[in-house]
Amino acid sequence: MVGVEQKTIRIGMIGYQFMGKAHSHAYRDLPFYFDTPLKPELKVIVGRNEATVKEAQKKFGFEAYETDWRKVVERDDIDVIDIVTPNHTHVEIALAAIEAGKHVIIEKPLALTVEEAKRMYKAAKESGVKHMICHNYRFAPAIQFAKQLIDQGKIGRVFHYRANYLQDFIIDPEFPLVWRLQKDIAGSGALGDIGAHSLDLARFLIGEFTELTGTMETFIKERPLGEMSGGLSAKGNSDQMGEVTVDDAVAIIARFENGALGTFEATRFANGNRNKNKFEINGEKGSIRWDMENMNNLEVYLSDDEAGEQGFRLINCTEEVHPYAGAYWPAGHIIGYEHTFINLFDEFFRGIAEDYQPKPNFEDGVRNQILLEAIEKSAEERSWVKIGQEIE
Amino acid sequence: MVGVEQKTIRIGMIGYQFMGKAHSHAYRDLPFYFDTPLKPELKVIVGRNEATVKEAQKKFGFEAYETDWRKVVERDDIDVIDIVTPNHTHVEIALAAIEAGKHVIIEKPLALTVEEAKRMYKAAKESGVKHMICHNYRFAPAIQFAKQLIDQGKIGRVFHYRANYLQDFIIDPEFPLVWRLQKDIAGSGALGDIGAHSLDLARFLIGEFTELTGTMETFIKERPLGEMSGGLSAKGNSDQMGEVTVDDAVAIIARFENGALGTFEATRFANGNRNKNKFEINGEKGSIRWDMENMNNLEVYLSDDEAGEQGFRLINCTEEVHPYAGAYWPAGHIIGYEHTFINLFDEFFRGIAEDYQPKPNFEDGVRNQILLEAIEKSAEERSWVKIGQEIE
Amino acid sequence: MVGVEQKTIRIGMIGYQFMGKAHSHAYRDLPFYFDTPLKPELKVIVGRNEATVKEAQKKFGFEAYETDWRKVVERDDIDVIDIVTPNHTHVEIALAAIEAGKHVIIEKPLALTVEEAKRMYKAAKESGVKHMICHNYRFAPAIQFAKQLIDQGKIGRVFHYRANYLQDFIIDPEFPLVWRLQKDIAGSGALGDIGAHSLDLARFLIGEFTELTGTMETFIKERPLGEMSGGLSAKGNSDQMGEVTVDDAVAIIARFENGALGTFEATRFANGNRNKNKFEINGEKGSIRWDMENMNNLEVYLSDDEAGEQGFRLINCTEEVHPYAGAYWPAGHIIGYEHTFINLFDEFFRGIAEDYQPKPNFEDGVRNQILLEAIEKSAEERSWVKIGQEIE
Amino acid sequence: MVGVEQKTIRIGMIGYQFMGKAHSHAYRDLPFYFDTPLKPELKVIVGRNEATVKEAQKKFGFEAYETDWRKVVERDDIDVIDIVTPNHTHVEIALAAIEAGKHVIIEKPLALTVEEAKRMYKAAKESGVKHMICHNYRFAPAIQFAKQLIDQGKIGRVFHYRANYLQDFIIDPEFPLVWRLQKDIAGSGALGDIGAHSLDLARFLIGEFTELTGTMETFIKERPLGEMSGGLSAKGNSDQMGEVTVDDAVAIIARFENGALGTFEATRFANGNRNKNKFEINGEKGSIRWDMENMNNLEVYLSDDEAGEQGFRLINCTEEVHPYAGAYWPAGHIIGYEHTFINLFDEFFRGIAEDYQPKPNFEDGVRNQILLEAIEKSAEERSWVKIGQEIE
Repeated sequence: MVGVEQKTIRIGMIGYQFMGKAHSHAYRDLPFYFDTPLKPELKVIVGRNEATVKEAQKKFGFEAYETDWRKVVERDDIDVIDIVTPNHTHVEIALAAIEAGKHVIIEKPLALTVEEAKRMYKAAKESGVKHMICHNYRFAPAIQFAKQLIDQGKIGRVFHYRANYLQDFIIDPEFPLVWRLQKDIAGSGALGDIGAHSLDLARFLIGEFTELTGTMETFIKERPLGEMSGGLSAKGNSDQMGEVTVDDAVAIIARFENGALGTFEATRFANGNRNKNKFEINGEKGSIRWDMENMNNLEVYLSDDEAGEQGFRLINCTEEVHPYAGAYWPAGHIIGYEHTFINLFDEFFRGIAEDYQPKPNFEDGVRNQILLEAIEKSAEERSWVKIGQEIE
Repeated sequence: MVGVEQKTIRIGMIGYQFMGKAHSHAYRDLPFYFDTPLKPELKVIVGRNEATVKEAQKKFGFEAYETDWRKVVERDDIDVIDIVTPNHTHVEIALAAIEAGKHVIIEKPLALTVEEAKRMYKAAKESGVKHMICHNYRFAPAIQFAKQLIDQGKIGRVFHYRANYLQDFIIDPEFPLVWRLQKDIAGSGALGDIGAHSLDLARFLIGEFTELTGTMETFIKERPLGEMSGGLSAKGNSDQMGEVTVDDAVAIIARFENGALGTFEATRFANGNRNKNKFEINGEKGSIRWDMENMNNLEVYLSDDEAGEQGFRLINCTEEVHPYAGAYWPAGHIIGYEHTFINLFDEFFRGIAEDYQPKPNFEDGVRNQILLEAIEKSAEERSWVKIGQEIE
Repeated sequence: MVGVEQKTIRIGMIGYQFMGKAHSHAYRDLPFYFDTPLKPELKVIVGRNEATVKEAQKKFGFEAYETDWRKVVERDDIDVIDIVTPNHTHVEIALAAIEAGKHVIIEKPLALTVEEAKRMYKAAKESGVKHMICHNYRFAPAIQFAKQLIDQGKIGRVFHYRANYLQDFIIDPEFPLVWRLQKDIAGSGALGDIGAHSLDLARFLIGEFTELTGTMETFIKERPLGEMSGGLSAKGNSDQMGEVTVDDAVAIIARFENGALGTFEATRFANGNRNKNKFEINGEKGSIRWDMENMNNLEVYLSDDEAGEQGFRLINCTEEVHPYAGAYWPAGHIIGYEHTFINLFDEFFRGIAEDYQPKPNFEDGVRNQILLEAIEKSAEERSWVKIGQEIE
Repeated sequence: MVGVEQKTIRIGMIGYQFMGKAHSHAYRDLPFYFDTPLKPELKVIVGRNEATVKEAQKKFGFEAYETDWRKVVERDDIDVIDIVTPNHTHVEIALAAIEAGKHVIIEKPLALTVEEAKRMYKAAKESGVKHMICHNYRFAPAIQFAKQLIDQGKIGRVFHYRANYLQDFIIDPEFPLVWRLQKDIAGSGALGDIGAHSLDLARFLIGEFTELTGTMETFIKERPLGEMSGGLSAKGNSDQMGEVTVDDAVAIIARFENGALGTFEATRFANGNRNKNKFEINGEKGSIRWDMENMNNLEVYLSDDEAGEQGFRLINCTEEVHPYAGAYWPAGHIIGYEHTFINLFDEFFRGIAEDYQPKPNFEDGVRNQILLEAIEKSAEERSWVKIGQEIE
C-alpha cells in the first residue's frame, strides 16, 4: 500500500483524450484551491500513439509518457493509476493496477458488463486500495447542497425523480463512426456515456432502484468510417460506411426503494441541447431542480413557505455556506465544469490520506452497471426488469 | 340540422363547474375578439343541484337553468349541447344530444372507455352534426405557431417528443376524495385529466402513436370523504376515509409513426408545479419547447442559424403574424388561459357555419381514449401495447 | 350625482382606439368574474369619423354611437364618461363631463400640462364625482401582491427602485408620424406614453419623488406623414416627411421621500422588447422584481431565508391568496394584459357604489404630470429639478 | 526591455488578496489551456504582513515572498510587475516598475485621480514596456463574441446601452469599515470597484462617452472599525465607529460618440444580487444582453430573423467557434469567473511576446479614470459633465 503517509502522490494516467484533459487539469489545480493532504505529481501518461501521447504529456504537464500501460502499472514510483481509456479496456487495466497495489480512479462506466464490474470491485475490496469512479457531477456544489437538503428532510418523502441528459453532437449523419458509437469498445451509446451520469445522480440523491423498463433507439444506423481518435468533434474521412452498434437515445421508467417514480432520458439527438444534464425531484415538502448548463444554480421549492410567497428559489450555490464553494471565489462569481473534477479529486485524496473509502467508488460502478445492463435487457425483452440489491 | 344559416347559435350547457366557467366565458367573449359567423346565445345551463345551478346561471349569464339535462337536449331552441359534466356521464348525454340533432362540444376525456368513445364518434359521424372535444391547449397561439413551423419542415425529421404535465394540488393527504379521484366517475386520474392533454398535443403536433409502455402510481391510497361538488380546491368534511381508485401519477414511453421516441409524465404530486404543462420536440433541423405557465412564449432552436449564433429563441407569440394573436392586443401584451377556449370556440362555430368538421373532434377523442386505455393496460400488464390506427 | 343606488351603470366612451378596445372589453367581462356592485351598460361610443366609430360601436357592443362628444356628456342617461381620446383633448372633455356631474375615468397621461391636470383635479374634487386614471398595471395581481409585501415591511427600508419600460415598435424609419409622435397632440413620446406607467408604479409601490434629473432623445427626427388614425402599427402612406416633436427615449435618475435612489428608462427603440415593462426594488430585507411580459410572476428575494437557501423566488401570482387571482382560474392558469383593466374597473365601480374615492385618480394624474413636466424641464435645462409635494 | 525572446516570463506580484488569488491562479492555469508564447514563472509575492504573505506565497505557489515591494521592482530576474494592492498605492508602484523597465499589469481602477493615471500612462508609453489593466470581464467568451457581432454590424446603429452592476455584500450595517469603504485608499466605492467595470465594457463594446450626469449615495454613513485586511467578508471587530467616505451606489446617464444613450447603475445594496454585472445593448438591427451570473450565455436578438420567428436567442458561448472557448471544454460544458483572467493573461503575454501593446491598457485606465472623475464631479455639482477625448 502506498500514499497514505506521503506529502505528494504520484499519478500514472492511462489515456489522454477528453477525460485525460479534465483529470490532468484537476490534478494541477487541486492544490491551489484546497488544502489537499496529498499533492499530485504527474509522473507518466500513457497512449498507444507515441506522437499524440507525447504532445499530451507536454500539454498536460506529465514528467514522462509511455506507450505500454503495463510498464506504468508495474512501476514502484506510481501510487495512483488513473484510467481514462475507452471503456472496453477498463477491466484489464484496473485489475492489473489493483494487483500491483495501486489506488485506482476510473472514468465511468466502470466496465462493459456487470460481470467485469463485479470482478473489479471484488479485487479492489480485497486488496484494500482506494478506488473511485468519476461521476463528477456529484461534485457540483449545487448537487452536494441538494444532497444536504434531501438528507435534512427538507423535501420530505420523494414522489418523483425526473432526469434528462440531452446532447446533440451526432445529429449530422456525416459525423463519423468514432469509438463511442461502437458497442465492442463503448459498451453502449447515450446510455453508458451520459445516461449513466443521470442514473448515478439519482442513486446519490434519492437511493437505490428496484425495477425499471426502458427502450433504446438508434436513429442513424450507418455512418462514415473516420478517425478512431475518439474526440467529440471528429470528422468522417472516408467514403466507407460502418454500422452504428450503440443506442443514440434511451428512455427509462423506474421505481426506487423509497417508493419514488423515476423517468430518465438520455440522447445525443436533442438539437440545441449541447450538454443539458438536468433533473427535477418532487417531494411532499418541496422540490429541487438542477441543470448542468447553469450548474451553479439550484432551484428549490419549499411548500412550508408562507402562502402566496411560495415559488422556486433560484439559489446561486457560490456562497461560503455551500459545499466546496468557499474554496473558490466570492458569492456570485461562478465556477464551471472543470471544478467538478477538482472537488472529486479532493475527495479521492482525502480518502487515501485519511484511509477511508471515498464515494462514488467501484461499488457504485457495479450498481450503475447493473442498471445499464438491466436497461439493455429491458429494451431487448420489452419488459420490466427487477434490480437486485445484493451485489456480491 | 341546425345552426348553419343562423346569425346566432343557441347553447345548452350540461354542467357548471370549472369547465362550465371556462366555456361560458369563452362564449361571451368570443364575439368581442372575433368576427365569429355565429354569435352564441346562452340559453340554458343544467345541474342537478338547483341552488348551485341557479347561481351559476346568473353568474355565467344563461337565460335559464334546468335540473334535468334530458329536457334541454329535447328543446327545439337549442343548437349546441356543451357537455362539461364528470366523465362518466359523457356517453349518455352525448348520444342523446346527437340523436336530437344537436352539435356537440364536450370536455375531455371523451368517455370512460374506448367502446363508449367509438359509439359516440360513430353516432356523431352518422348524424352529420358537428362535434368537438375541448383539447383547448391546441389553441394557444404558440402551439398553433409550433404546428406551422413543424408543417413547414422547420425542424425536419422528429427524433424526440418529451412532455410533462405537472400539478401539485392533491399532495396534502387531507385533500378529500373528490370525483376526480374516483375511477367510476373520472375514468382515471392524472392520466385522463392532464396526461390526456399531453397525448393530444403530441398527436396534433407530430402524429400518431404506434406503441407504448407505461406505469401508474397512487401515492396516497385513502383520503377523507368530502363534498362531491368536484372543484379543485374542495376541503374534506368528514372523518370517514375512502379509497382513491385512480392514478396520482403516470409515466409513459412511446413510439410514433414518424419514428420519434416519446416520453410522457403526468402527475398531481409535483410540488411547486401548479399547472406545468410543457413539452420539447427535437428534430434534425431544430427544436421547440413550450410551457403552459408561460404560454405566450415558444422557444425555437434552428440549427441552420449561423455557427456561433445558434440558440433557443424566446418568441413571444403575441404578434399579428402569430395565429389568433392579431385578434387580441399589440405585441408583448400577453393573453392567458381563457383565450385558448375562445380560440377553440371560434373554430367550432366556423366549422358549423361553413359546414366543415372542426378539429379536434370525436375522432381525436377516440384516438385519445385508445391511448388512455392502452396505457392502463400496459401499466397493468407491465408490457408494451401496440396502438392500432384503424378506429372503426 | 348618479350611479350609487343603481344596479347598472351607464357608460359613455369618448374615443375608440387601442384603449377603447381595452376598456370596452373590461366593461363587458367584469360582471362575469366579479360580483361588481354596478353592472356596466355600454350606452354610447364617440368618434369623429362616423364610419369607423360605427364599426367600433358594433364591435365593442355599445348601444349607439355619436360623433360629437358634447352631446354625450349632456345626456341624462349617462353615469360615467370614459375618456380614451388623444391626450390633448382630455382637459376639455373631462371638465365638461365633471360639470355635467358624471363620474370620469380617463386614460393616462391626465393632460398635456400640470396646469391642465390641476384644473381637472380641482374640478373633480369640488364636484364630488368619482374620478380615476387608468394606470392599469397597478392592477396586475403580482403588483398588488408586491404592494402588500412592501406594506408589510417584508423588504424593509428601500434602497433602490430600478425601472425600464422598453418597446421597439417605431425603430423602422418608415413608421409614420402618427399622433403619438406629435407633441401638440400627445404631450410627449415614450415619456408620457410608457414612462408615465413606470413613474406611477414607483409612486404606488414606494412613495413620492423629491427630485430628479433626466434626458430625452429623438433618434429619428423626421418620418413620413401617414394616416392619423393613430394605431400602433399604422403604415406611412405619403412621400411627405414631418418632424417628430416628441422623445423616442428618456432616461431619469431620481430620489424618493423614503431615501431611495431611482432610475428609470422608457424607450420605443429597444429592439426585441415588445412591451418590456419591468422593475426591481431592493430593500434592506429583500428585493422584488417584475416584468409585464411575464406579468403573472413576481420574483421575491427575502434575506431572512436560511443561509444557503436564499434566492429569488419565482412566484406565480395565480393562487387564491393573491389579490384578484381568486376571481379567475385555478393556480397556474395565467391571466393576461386585459385583466389589469377588469380589476381596475372593479375598483372604480366599487368606489362609486360604496362612495369612496378610488385610486389611482386625478390626484395621481396631477402628481404624474408634475413628474413628466419636471423631466422635460430637467432635460431641457440639463439640471436636477425638485418635486414639490403640495399640489393645490 | 525584457521578456520578448524568453520562453518563460518571471512574475513579481505586489499584493495578495482577492485579486492576488485570481491572478496567481491565472498564471498557473494559462499554459495548460493555451499555447502561450511565454510561460509565467511565479518568482515573488509581496505583502507588508510577513505572516500572511508567507501563507499566500505557499498557497499561490510563488518561489519567494517579500515585504518591501521596492526590492522586487529592482530585481533583475523579474519581467512583469503585477499590482493587486489597494488603489491608493497603484501610482507609486507602477511608476517605479516602469522606471525599472518592467512590464506592468494592474488591477482597476488604474489610480485615484486622472492626473495620477495620466502620469502612469505617459511613463509606460515612453518607456516602451507593455502595460495592461485588468478589466477581466472583457475576456468572457460571450463578451468577446458580442464585440464580434457589433463590429460585424449585426446590431447596426446603437441606440441604447443599459448596464447594472449589482452586489449586496455590505447591506448589513455591521459590515466593517474595510479599505474599500475609505476614500483615501479606494478612491471611490461602488463607482470605482464595480461601476468601473461597466464603464469599461461599454467603451469596449460601443465606444467613447461624450458627456454624463450622475449621482452618488451612501446609505449607511458609519460602520464599525474592523480588520483592515480588506477581504470581502471581513467582520467588524470593534465597538468604535468610523465614517464611510465612499459611495454605496451610483447612477449615471450618459451619451456616446455614436449617438447612443447610456444608463449605468452600480450598487452594493441590491439585496439578492451577489454579483449581477449585466447590460443590454439595443441597436437598429438587433439587441444583445449579458449577465455575469450566467456569463457563458449571450442573449442576441436579430430583427432580420423571419417575422414570427424573432426572439432573443440564448447562445451558450462554449462552442469552438466562440472566442477562447475552444481552449476549454466541449460545447455546453461551462467555464467560470477565473477563466476571464486566464484569457486576459493570454492576451498580455502575446502582446509581450509579439511586441504589440495589448488592450485594455493604461490608456483605457486613463479613459476610465476620466469617467470616474467626471461622475464624481457631476454628482457633486449636480450637472452634466463633458468628456474630452484628448488624453495627453
